[in-house]
Amino acid sequence: MKNKAVVLLSGGLDSATTLYWARAEGFECHCLIFDYGQIHRRELSSALRLVKTAGCRHKLVKIRLPWKGSSLLDKSISIPRRDRSLSDKKLEHHIPSTYVPARNIIFLSFALSFAEVIGAKNIFIGAHIHDYSGYPDCRPDFLRDFNLAALRGTKSGVENKPIRVVAPLENKSKAQIIRLGQRLKVPFGLTWSCYKGEKFPCGECDSCEFRALGFRRAGLRDPLMKK
Amino acid sequence: MKNKAVVLLSGGLDSATTLYWARAEGFECHCLIFDYGQIHRRELSSALRLVKTAGCRHKLVKIRLPWKGSSLLDKSISIPRRDRSLSDKKLEHHIPSTYVPARNIIFLSFALSFAEVIGAKNIFIGAHIHDYSGYPDCRPDFLRDFNLAALRGTKSGVENKPIRVVAPLENKSKAQIIRLGQRLKVPFGLTWSCYKGEKFPCGECDSCEFRALGFRRAGLRDPLMKK
Repeated sequence: MKNKAVVLLSGGLDSATTLYWARAEGFECHCLIFDYGQIHRRELSSALRLVKTAGCRHKLVKIRLPWKGSSLLDKSISIPRRDRSLSDKKLEHHIPSTYVPARNIIFLSFALSFAEVIGAKNIFIGAHIHDYSGYPDCRPDFLRDFNLAALRGTKSGVENKPIRVVAPLENKSKAQIIRLGQRLKVPFGLTWSCYKGEKFPCGECDSCEFRALGFRRAGLRDPLMKK
Repeated sequence: MKNKAVVLLSGGLDSATTLYWARAEGFECHCLIFDYGQIHRRELSSALRLVKTAGCRHKLVKIRLPWKGSSLLDKSISIPRRDRSLSDKKLEHHIPSTYVPARNIIFLSFALSFAEVIGAKNIFIGAHIHDYSGYPDCRPDFLRDFNLAALRGTKSGVENKPIRVVAPLENKSKAQIIRLGQRLKVPFGLTWSCYKGEKFPCGECDSCEFRALGFRRAGLRDPLMKK
């Protein structure tokens, strides 16, 4: 019998690669997709198409935060363009307006609940340290501490059947993730990275910039881009 | 200017006492009330009446978990009666069917997000170690580890403006909580503890038993009980 795993699937390139990696590793993948009121709904439909293409099960969790505090939730806050004056070191400490307060903590808590109910031993998340914007809830230190809290705060943990959050892409660059995804046959054309959910990627936001750079460095063409 | 605090308010006796304690300590209290699909809706209306009586602000968060795994969410699982054969020591390791997988972890994650957005430094929760059913997500060890994860995983934490989860009733018995609530003029008649949301408390579930024992030991009459 296959081991079950919960996979957080946003519809972006990283979580899609994480899903295909987990599937290739032999896990029975149960995807969690969050409709959390994100302005760019395009990401959500990408996630639903991806899970269908991968042939995996999923649950859609609908959350409406009765507060905002992020440009991904509030149209009145503008999506920042990549600030080329920031070095990588500075980026680490620069948290942009696209940060959604405690988003991954909320997502991981739901994943923990789901994993407990279905008896999954692992939760896979597409977070990686070379990721763009220095989101604190993508960092390995945070994931380590969250795992400790999860161990103490759940029935599974207390009964010595721990559920572990693992970020398999943790130490990979965007180009390495894209190369891995290519090998795993991730349908990149179905993924969506742009912070603006328009017909084509804007090509100007942080997320578009990093995706473009990743494909360039991997020596591959992004099927999402206009020819 | 008063310090802001987020208070998790379930409608029960413990969280109501926590709210009145925080108010008496001078905090500007912002309550979080969760409609998470609990079968006993009575608890929810109690929370809304309490927050109004206390004159505090609140946000209602609606969550629908697309899975169950608890007798508080699933009518087909029966609510356990208190098992008198279990000693206190055994109770610590006995997790009943009323356990909702990762419930407090989910609630605290939302509270963290809310606290970040409004600039609150504290989250108050009514958890206490003498609490009835050995829920792992009520234990001090868990709260300590959750605070570490919160410190690492939020913008506030990274920017050295930590948000701390505090359980002010942590070391109190039910009788001590009731005596404290009495001094703080908590309207106990508005609180609700019974796991079944009927017209009167059932008097037989774990939660009713503990409440009755608490009032008895505190030498007070529960205004909720029929004369």
